[in-house]
Amino acid sequence: MREVAVIGTGMTKFGELWDLSLRDLFVEAALGAVAGVGADRVESIYVGNMSGGQFVGQEHLGPLMADHLGVAGVPATRVESACASGGMALRSAYLEVASGMSDLVLASGVEKMNDGADVTGILATASDQEAEVYYGVTFPGLYAMIARAHMEAHGTTEEDLSWVSVKAHKNGALNPHAQFRRIMSLEDVMTSSVVAEPLRLLHCSPVTDGAAAVLLCPLERAHEFTDQPVKILASGAATSTLALADRPDPSFLDVVELSGRRAFEMAGLSPEDIDVAEVHDCFAIAEICCVEALGFVGLGEGKSAAQDGITDLGGKIPVNVSGGLKSKGHPVGATGVAQAVTVVEQLQGQAGPVQVEGAKIGLAQNMGGSGASSVVHIFQGV
Amino acid sequence: MREVAVIGTGMTKFGELWDLSLRDLFVEAALGAVAGVGADRVESIYVGNMSGGQFVGQEHLGPLMADHLGVAGVPATRVESACASGGMALRSAYLEVASGMSDLVLASGVEKMNDGADVTGILATASDQEAEVYYGVTFPGLYAMIARAHMEAHGTTEEDLSWVSVKAHKNGALNPHAQFRRIMSLEDVMTSSVVAEPLRLLHCSPVTDGAAAVLLCPLERAHEFTDQPVKILASGAATSTLALADRPDPSFLDVVELSGRRAFEMAGLSPEDIDVAEVHDCFAIAEICCVEALGFVGLGEGKSAAQDGITDLGGKIPVNVSGGLKSKGHPVGATGVAQAVTVVEQLQGQAGPVQVEGAKIGLAQNMGGSGASSVVHIFQGV
Repeated sequence: MREVAVIGTGMTKFGELWDLSLRDLFVEAALGAVAGVGADRVESIYVGNMSGGQFVGQEHLGPLMADHLGVAGVPATRVESACASGGMALRSAYLEVASGMSDLVLASGVEKMNDGADVTGILATASDQEAEVYYGVTFPGLYAMIARAHMEAHGTTEEDLSWVSVKAHKNGALNPHAQFRRIMSLEDVMTSSVVAEPLRLLHCSPVTDGAAAVLLCPLERAHEFTDQPVKILASGAATSTLALADRPDPSFLDVVELSGRRAFEMAGLSPEDIDVAEVHDCFAIAEICCVEALGFVGLGEGKSAAQDGITDLGGKIPVNVSGGLKSKGHPVGATGVAQAVTVVEQLQGQAGPVQVEGAKIGLAQNMGGSGASSVVHIFQGV
Repeated sequence: MREVAVIGTGMTKFGELWDLSLRDLFVEAALGAVAGVGADRVESIYVGNMSGGQFVGQEHLGPLMADHLGVAGVPATRVESACASGGMALRSAYLEVASGMSDLVLASGVEKMNDGADVTGILATASDQEAEVYYGVTFPGLYAMIARAHMEAHGTTEEDLSWVSVKAHKNGALNPHAQFRRIMSLEDVMTSSVVAEPLRLLHCSPVTDGAAAVLLCPLERAHEFTDQPVKILASGAATSTLALADRPDPSFLDVVELSGRRAFEMAGLSPEDIDVAEVHDCFAIAEICCVEALGFVGLGEGKSAAQDGITDLGGKIPVNVSGGLKSKGHPVGATGVAQAVTVVEQLQGQAGPVQVEGAKIGLAQNMGGSGASSVVHIFQGV
């Protein structure tokens, strides 16, 4: 396999972006990623998107986006793995460069969720239609069940969940791209309205419009285009059962453990080697489960990682310095690529007020459904 | 790049399959493709699917299908490029094997269209939502405009269109997997009801449930698994404008020409080298445009290729010996993989009554939208 580097990044503001359409969002992010190279040199495009068809009546995003970037003709396709669509689009782009088929490949993600669709109903189509949706369960309910299982198994409390949100908003307040740039106190979180017990509003990521993109090329060509390439050390992907009830232990995200293990093995690294990580905190409980499954903390120790400062900026392993899905926002198909943008900026020393000093190796973990798909990328500044 | 071979194929019956769900269809096709190897050895899965979310309320098909094949854990993702989803899933699987990331990769496609959804409305989300759908146009209308443009440019007639359908049904009648195994006369076609002038019912592919799958591995390992591997010589993909009206000549499918040219260049071959081809005849006019754009006949000569027997079984270049999308059926996300299954069976000499004698090299061309995306694969028996 050829070695692959990220040579450009782009990202829109995240939020309720009423004046930008799906195609506008993609183009803005893509132009950022290709700024140092020129769109006309892009050889292939992958678009991570969960539900353009359901959200805004638009499938077939590959040619649409190539066309609106002004490069109609180049191969372009959509990749979908629910909320892991962006991460899987990055993986597909990585494989195309690694294979030798193409040199300059754009990995992107985009979602337009605020155009009036039934968001919760559409998101539920990422769970098992026959075993879950049919019975009325939606994602807040599924993650509430994961939280309850974690409480049973490890004594996790509502306060533990809430510290994750407090940390997210503390970081997100410093991120100019974030949807909610507000510091939230523990009391704010713990008195917010209940969505699905024990999950409250401020334990849940919001409904977001946004896009992100990264441009890849073979590592050996990277210095033609940038002084600060970031090498992709590994890509690890995995699946688990689509239905939560089919898993032996719903408090443990086996898919995250497996995708992480594959990535660590490919990179020849262990969790201790990671300086900064973005993980998939669609709900506060998800961050707790993810830092455990990735091996950043021991099993059952995720509950206090935020409160104890372990995952804080300046802690042992800073997690979601961007504000995470909670505060930065969660345009589902874009999230995996946005995580990569955050990690790449960290490894380039370009992260401003949330810069992790001396960060050399970073990890991005993106998840679909209630933990049915997960993809982990590990990056290194070069 | 590593050389890649097809080592297994599987396909369901195509039709209105009321007793089989989306997941059932996938599993049946996948089990066929992995029969000689065992599902537990599959390392990665790509699922081509256009609109599971809109058709049956199910996105996130990667983990769902891995789970129901009994291999939850393996990386699995969906690839979407409208009606070219299957072909792009095959391309993604090809790139993963070529890259060296994995050896045994399953490329599949599946669509369940007959479960009561607004099929025409859903399919229209593969066209441009803002420039086309908003004004009420659907795919029969778009292809009718292509047909009108072809009539203007080349003097094509309704009878020319109809001979394409007559040939399709003659071949499809011999295909046990086909949805409509009926011979249709020229009169049958020309007196069928008008859908969008000049296109009649029997110029249009039907609404179909079905799935197809092929198993890939590195060419150097292929003989471990089968006596009849088929090498993938090339994969060429392209896009054009999503909206038909944005193209300078709507009678010419530039996306097919470009994807074909890329594939021929990669294989070091020309159209004369192809012994058998499956092309994307979602409407009769599409086959006429595709055989021209692929260079099997000259520009403007596609109109009479079926009537003159050029594309007939036993003709200069047999096209759509399976019955094509018209007679075999068109489960949109599965079609591109089903085309590959047909070509592989031809190169293995396993095509029974529609076998092209001595076929050594075959081509499959799969298209999305009104010609916004296209992917061409060229295969060779080894």
